[in-house]
Amino acid sequence: MTTPLAPPAVLAELERAHDRDLAALLELARIPSVSADPRHAGDVHAAAELLATRLRTQAELDVRLHATSGNPIVSASWRGAPHAPTILVYGHYDVQPPDPVDAWTTPPFEPSIRDGRIYARGISDDKAPLSIAIDTIGAYLRATGALPLNIVLLLEGEEEVGSPSLPAFALCERARLQADLVVSADGGMWRADHPTTLRSTRGLAALELSLRGAGKDLHSGRHGGALANPLHALAELVASLHDEHGRVNVEGFYDDVLPLRPDLSAATRALPFDDTAYLAEVGAPATYGERGYSTLERQWYRPTLELNGMWGGYTGPGTKTVLPSRAHAKITCRLVADQDPRRVLDAIERHLRRHVPTGVSLAVARSEHGTRAYHLPDHHPGLRAVTRSLHATYGVEPWVIGLGGSVPICDTFLEQLGMATVFFSFAVGDENIHAPDEFFRLHRLAEGRRAWAELLARLPHELGDG
Amino acid sequence: MTTPLAPPAVLAELERAHDRDLAALLELARIPSVSADPRHAGDVHAAAELLATRLRTQAELDVRLHATSGNPIVSASWRGAPHAPTILVYGHYDVQPPDPVDAWTTPPFEPSIRDGRIYARGISDDKAPLSIAIDTIGAYLRATGALPLNIVLLLEGEEEVGSPSLPAFALCERARLQADLVVSADGGMWRADHPTTLRSTRGLAALELSLRGAGKDLHSGRHGGALANPLHALAELVASLHDEHGRVNVEGFYDDVLPLRPDLSAATRALPFDDTAYLAEVGAPATYGERGYSTLERQWYRPTLELNGMWGGYTGPGTKTVLPSRAHAKITCRLVADQDPRRVLDAIERHLRRHVPTGVSLAVARSEHGTRAYHLPDHHPGLRAVTRSLHATYGVEPWVIGLGGSVPICDTFLEQLGMATVFFSFAVGDENIHAPDEFFRLHRLAEGRRAWAELLARLPHELGDG
Repeated sequence: MTTPLAPPAVLAELERAHDRDLAALLELARIPSVSADPRHAGDVHAAAELLATRLRTQAELDVRLHATSGNPIVSASWRGAPHAPTILVYGHYDVQPPDPVDAWTTPPFEPSIRDGRIYARGISDDKAPLSIAIDTIGAYLRATGALPLNIVLLLEGEEEVGSPSLPAFALCERARLQADLVVSADGGMWRADHPTTLRSTRGLAALELSLRGAGKDLHSGRHGGALANPLHALAELVASLHDEHGRVNVEGFYDDVLPLRPDLSAATRALPFDDTAYLAEVGAPATYGERGYSTLERQWYRPTLELNGMWGGYTGPGTKTVLPSRAHAKITCRLVADQDPRRVLDAIERHLRRHVPTGVSLAVARSEHGTRAYHLPDHHPGLRAVTRSLHATYGVEPWVIGLGGSVPICDTFLEQLGMATVFFSFAVGDENIHAPDEFFRLHRLAEGRRAWAELLARLPHELGDG
Repeated sequence: MTTPLAPPAVLAELERAHDRDLAALLELARIPSVSADPRHAGDVHAAAELLATRLRTQAELDVRLHATSGNPIVSASWRGAPHAPTILVYGHYDVQPPDPVDAWTTPPFEPSIRDGRIYARGISDDKAPLSIAIDTIGAYLRATGALPLNIVLLLEGEEEVGSPSLPAFALCERARLQADLVVSADGGMWRADHPTTLRSTRGLAALELSLRGAGKDLHSGRHGGALANPLHALAELVASLHDEHGRVNVEGFYDDVLPLRPDLSAATRALPFDDTAYLAEVGAPATYGERGYSTLERQWYRPTLELNGMWGGYTGPGTKTVLPSRAHAKITCRLVADQDPRRVLDAIERHLRRHVPTGVSLAVARSEHGTRAYHLPDHHPGLRAVTRSLHATYGVEPWVIGLGGSVPICDTFLEQLGMATVFFSFAVGDENIHAPDEFFRLHRLAEGRRAWAELLARLPHELGDG
């Protein structure tokens, strides 16, 4: 058992402030800060203002609201421990679109507490985890008048669209942001019943493709059979992207993929994971994907090419006999080391241009904000601080695992500022993030706050030891 | 040159009433009588009421508004010529959905007259053509106090959804509807610069398919690579429906297709039609489809399987990294003699069930209201009446051609009442029916009215000659 280091006064203050902090979290969750949708630009700004106002109630913090070319970044710093290390605490206040809204049990931006869970879009990704971090910092300051190490808090509003403003911001504010370690409140644990942290995240590359046949929608009776149908062409083109076993069938896609390390494969296969239970959890009839890898290996350590959306023609009730002019698809890839997002998009675009069917023309819109995969060295002192803090909080040895998702900031902080990132989030992977009925477990608020107090108290020692 | 038979008094009355009848047409076009969308049920009823009220201003007509299990049918009959033949005049007052609404230059249900054209959803299909018929009947009655033959007018409100109520109505009202010939005001001419009528129409069969992977939308980072993506599966399944040359690749699909008659093929190839001009008209880069047939042959005399809509996942602005639970597609087939809609849907459903990819489940919803292809014998007296009336009106020999679209009522009237249908519409195939900016040429109102007066005067002779 790891001996806890968190000061009892801080833990007492956290308990005292729990309900007030919960109310503040619900207020934040009410703001539809959807960064992907320009119609919510005002809401995104409102969420940033709310967080800045809240942080300013802690007089010791130097709080700033930074304009960027996109959504604002909120920062708060405390540098009262000149001989201690410095950490940058990261979180994001923007959320995914709530679609399909009809599939939610309660409206996505009216937080509802049911059966020990808070339901709201963005509550697990990342409003509750970031609130845990900032509320613990506040309680620490109120209880002890100081922090055990220097902190700069950075809350952005563009994580769900690939953090396009962050690299320039990190570069311009490099002096203000420089730290010994980034602690991300974004990331999430694998299981609700066992503490975990992350060794790696996958990268991301995105593009959208459109096919155009005729210049306008046509009557499918009058014109059907005479012209290419962009929906058929899209189906053919999309189908060409994978082989019959789900392996990506794009020339060059796997060129830079490092082979899966045998020790990592062995560790992954040793985890208590069962395909049958997993399928029951997600309600799917079968697992599916690249041969020769287990389900977890495919989720964490192998790259993917996924359609996230596909549309064209009439999609309303009943029948409309239209031969549509256009068809569209949105694609994202999850990348692993050493794939480069630009090279991957090059390969896909080359494939699309080579395979575009007769009678339609192709347009490709690439997202410029790709992310490389990220991984932390196994014996990193930050990783040790995290695992020991979790051990002290939960009483069991945490698992160090991979994340199938992407946390672009790891890439940004490493490239721009040379800083490594550790993950310390109390979200769990089953909380319907990016899906209807997203939720966060209420009891993990208190657990997360105790663990953050422990981490803040422990980090000066662990980083000093490193 | 065919000698005109239309009484001068009728032609004078048509000219006198032109502007008033045009205003009445615009009033009808303002009603969004979209039969495919249940939200417009009230509007569909309002259109039927408007037509019934308008017909009742002609005291000689026996006008009725018939309730059905779907949308109402308006009928009006005049039986004052016991020794003359009887015709059933058909039209439909329902319209296609206006989507995509954003693509219209002016709102679809705010008729706009620009450059000699009336723009509105349904104006060409079929509100202007049916108005021409009923307004000419009215003018004939006002000018001469009688009609040259017996007429029953039938206006339905479900043509755009496959006329589901019509067969039962035809059966129940068979005595009231019995006629020597059906004259359809729906159908349309091929060209604006040369009169045409139809020898045949294609049939229709429709189904919708849905694929389900996981029970809910999932995060494409967390779960991507582990499970089948229904969008990939849909692309694969849809792509399997055609071979690489656009021929339908479904076992049994062509089983009952009668070979194209060589004389029909020769006549079709003799028509002034040019692929290059056609491509310029529709704005497409190339023709595409079944090999061995010309563009017109594929449009008029060969069957098709077309996707009319396909959708799943996130389709809004920006990126949403979702692994969607479901993906959907709408399919319609255009059929030719002797294909049976039910057997064709059986073949497609069998194909889909055989080819459903791993990791997803398939649901198929078939439309029960299929239509067989229809064709008129070459020497039918009704066809002769139509071609001579067009000749008398336009001064040139009309072409008798095929229609790629479907007019389910031909099948219904033939099966239920043993009546053949001829087509006498003054819509033109280039008028963006089923598409944004649907329009009708203003000058064809007057032409159509003159031609209808000619047809009414001529039919007793031609049908008597038959």
